[in-house]
Amino acid sequence: MNLFHIIEVQQFKDRGLLEDIFSLSARMEKLDESKDLSLLLPSVPRRKILASLFYEPSTRTRLSFESAMKRLGGDVISTEDAPHFSSAVKGESLTDTIKVVSSFADAIVLRHYEEGSAKRASEVSKVPIINAGDGPGQHPTQALLDLYTIKKELGRIDNLKVCFVGDLLYSRTVHSLVYLLAQQNNIELYFVSPEEIRMPRDIADYLKEKGCPFFEQETLFEVAHIVDILYVTRVQKERFRSIVEYERVKDSYVVDKQITQAMKEGSRILHPLPRVQELPPEIDSDSRSAYFRQADNGLYLRMSLLSMLLKQ
Amino acid sequence: MNLFHIIEVQQFKDRGLLEDIFSLSARMEKLDESKDLSLLLPSVPRRKILASLFYEPSTRTRLSFESAMKRLGGDVISTEDAPHFSSAVKGESLTDTIKVVSSFADAIVLRHYEEGSAKRASEVSKVPIINAGDGPGQHPTQALLDLYTIKKELGRIDNLKVCFVGDLLYSRTVHSLVYLLAQQNNIELYFVSPEEIRMPRDIADYLKEKGCPFFEQETLFEVAHIVDILYVTRVQKERFRSIVEYERVKDSYVVDKQITQAMKEGSRILHPLPRVQELPPEIDSDSRSAYFRQADNGLYLRMSLLSMLLKQ
Amino acid sequence: MNLFHIIEVQQFKDRGLLEDIFSLSARMEKLDESKDLSLLLPSVPRRKILASLFYEPSTRTRLSFESAMKRLGGDVISTEDAPHFSSAVKGESLTDTIKVVSSFADAIVLRHYEEGSAKRASEVSKVPIINAGDGPGQHPTQALLDLYTIKKELGRIDNLKVCFVGDLLYSRTVHSLVYLLAQQNNIELYFVSPEEIRMPRDIADYLKEKGCPFFEQETLFEVAHIVDILYVTRVQKERFRSIVEYERVKDSYVVDKQITQAMKEGSRILHPLPRVQELPPEIDSDSRSAYFRQADNGLYLRMSLLSMLLKQ
Repeated sequence: MNLFHIIEVQQFKDRGLLEDIFSLSARMEKLDESKDLSLLLPSVPRRKILASLFYEPSTRTRLSFESAMKRLGGDVISTEDAPHFSSAVKGESLTDTIKVVSSFADAIVLRHYEEGSAKRASEVSKVPIINAGDGPGQHPTQALLDLYTIKKELGRIDNLKVCFVGDLLYSRTVHSLVYLLAQQNNIELYFVSPEEIRMPRDIADYLKEKGCPFFEQETLFEVAHIVDILYVTRVQKERFRSIVEYERVKDSYVVDKQITQAMKEGSRILHPLPRVQELPPEIDSDSRSAYFRQADNGLYLRMSLLSMLLKQ
Repeated sequence: MNLFHIIEVQQFKDRGLLEDIFSLSARMEKLDESKDLSLLLPSVPRRKILASLFYEPSTRTRLSFESAMKRLGGDVISTEDAPHFSSAVKGESLTDTIKVVSSFADAIVLRHYEEGSAKRASEVSKVPIINAGDGPGQHPTQALLDLYTIKKELGRIDNLKVCFVGDLLYSRTVHSLVYLLAQQNNIELYFVSPEEIRMPRDIADYLKEKGCPFFEQETLFEVAHIVDILYVTRVQKERFRSIVEYERVKDSYVVDKQITQAMKEGSRILHPLPRVQELPPEIDSDSRSAYFRQADNGLYLRMSLLSMLLKQ
Repeated sequence: MNLFHIIEVQQFKDRGLLEDIFSLSARMEKLDESKDLSLLLPSVPRRKILASLFYEPSTRTRLSFESAMKRLGGDVISTEDAPHFSSAVKGESLTDTIKVVSSFADAIVLRHYEEGSAKRASEVSKVPIINAGDGPGQHPTQALLDLYTIKKELGRIDNLKVCFVGDLLYSRTVHSLVYLLAQQNNIELYFVSPEEIRMPRDIADYLKEKGCPFFEQETLFEVAHIVDILYVTRVQKERFRSIVEYERVKDSYVVDKQITQAMKEGSRILHPLPRVQELPPEIDSDSRSAYFRQADNGLYLRMSLLSMLLKQ
């Protein structure tokens, strides 16, 4: 299976492809500490160039891609503020911008506020487009690094009980990872959230169709002792109809020591970051808290994807 | 003729210099696909560094220069938001900024909102200044890439009938290209624009003095079948005294299929981009639509100029 | 003495360390013109990466660090607008950001608006933190380059009469340099400022304790003929209780030709830049005006520090 653009997690249904990506990511981490990585990307006729086009700020994701590209011996041209692009201001279409920028670079990582933007970009680009978030749409490299982290931490991506907690309605990260997990074997899912922001019905329907069992509930404590992976997201005030309602529920979704004490020894806590109050610093030193290692894994996962896209 | 700063098109009157730049640009395009370009810039004692100082957003131009520099094996330090330069906020003069930054880099590409800024910068800089647009002033590398595109598309820069359409009053791109064209042999110019934004009188006077024939009119259709090059620019609403007036004329400057059907087989359509409604997407697939190739040419033209400036 | 983080000038009390840094800086300047600097940083397993995290604009400082890193054969990932960091907007703590970014880079140069931020960052970072200004706190590389400039211009950092003029209350640059000077031998200090913005009492107390003589006064002219170094800073209108008061005093702190004529032949004028009216351009051509050379020295001083931090 040949990757060119990376637009959505549906491209990663193939288990063999996932395993190739994960083993290459693990190899990248080792090589990064020991070998001359510039040999990993072809540098003749010249160092490859990645263009970062960010129409929304996401410095963490941008720096992760840029560091990955530079570790491979590649180079980067970058805009952290594309909406003020003179051409965007003047009303230029995204596809015109992509047509031009795709002549300047060997690949483009695109963050845009509109769902479907990465797909449209890929239709006109001469070089690979990597979707780094298209509004409420997808952010496939985040889902891949989440799954890679599970693999690295627990040694498997099958036979898992995974609990998602927090904002399950709006988190594209959660939707993409749920999709990928449902492709694996013997997965049980637990969805813990306030009523206002529970898992969308189309994803629930998809899981039923796939025969992937899932359970929805409003409090975390009763499932904490069951799960292998606790995937936490922020619960944002602005999602609630009233501040009273928000204040009533918010503490039910905080992963404090009471929760971690209930969790299994071999379990792990993930979070796409940034975290706010839902993960109090008191649990950072718990060896099961894997969220900072998860961010690190993003670097090697992205090195792996970039090297696959650019080695042609 | 030795280039150091690149400030205005008047520096490119010499036909031999133009031809050197164009043949080097063509060579850059070939080398970029086949050879190790890092040999083209001296890299001892170290990789050369280009500083991008953009006091106005122009990401397309910035990325074009930065990609050009990196393709040559050089490196870049960059600011896409120089007005928020702490020193600019504190009232530092442009010349002080240039004095300091010219110690950090081997060349500076400067975009600034004030006419004459590039000239002033060049008076204090230790390293070459490249003017990437000085307000209503000049943008010489755009004019050079326009002329290079004509050369590449038609094989010549003499014996041409060139029509400029749209905003001829405020477009510095048009003024600079008209200047360069008037230096060549057997050029006939057609200026098509609403009365409000016709070619300034000083340029008309210059053409008369040069003996370069030109014709002004208000509608495009009647000249479409004559011209070798149709150079299109945006007609901006805000240039008009009234919105009624704008609505009345705007469609006369749209290059739709009716216009392209009237055009000669061997003609070409150029546009500095970004384009809005004046070039409907329906004509993009016409082989005479050269505007995206024109943007690509900018990359090689800039590689050529940077290598000339930095090979000392 | 091993440097890891660079947070405050108090780390540079050791005279041997200072001399090592200065002689390495001088060597950097020579090498930069003659040798392949990429050998100065280890590039196996890969080119080292510096992350620039700027929560306040300071393009001069940022470009100086980035140029230094690239001259050494290293690479840079950069954000010139970190407050719009999606994670900062979402309420992420600085320490979380640093934990993540310190996985992407081999060192971090941090500019932040809060005093103590660099220290807090250093407590969680896996890689060296370089403080490039923490609000009203410190900016140690500025103080080091100031002292290096004195060494380069006068050949010594002992036996000096140094006058600070302008805003002595709020200038962290002045405080840090005063601290470093007081560590050297036979230093006499002169503080010239309006009453409103004189040297803080804790620094005066520190100097008394150190036995370093200092003299405070309100006008410049009477000391101009005495000093070896005249260190000038901006007097900002907004520091004054009334505009009348500002207008009354501001001209007393302008270093015009009347002042320079009174100064000794072997003396020097320094300024951290940007300068506004306090250094009129008429004195720029005076060979004792060292402020632009001072900015240049920053580049070599930073190359020297980066190479010390990254050669492990």
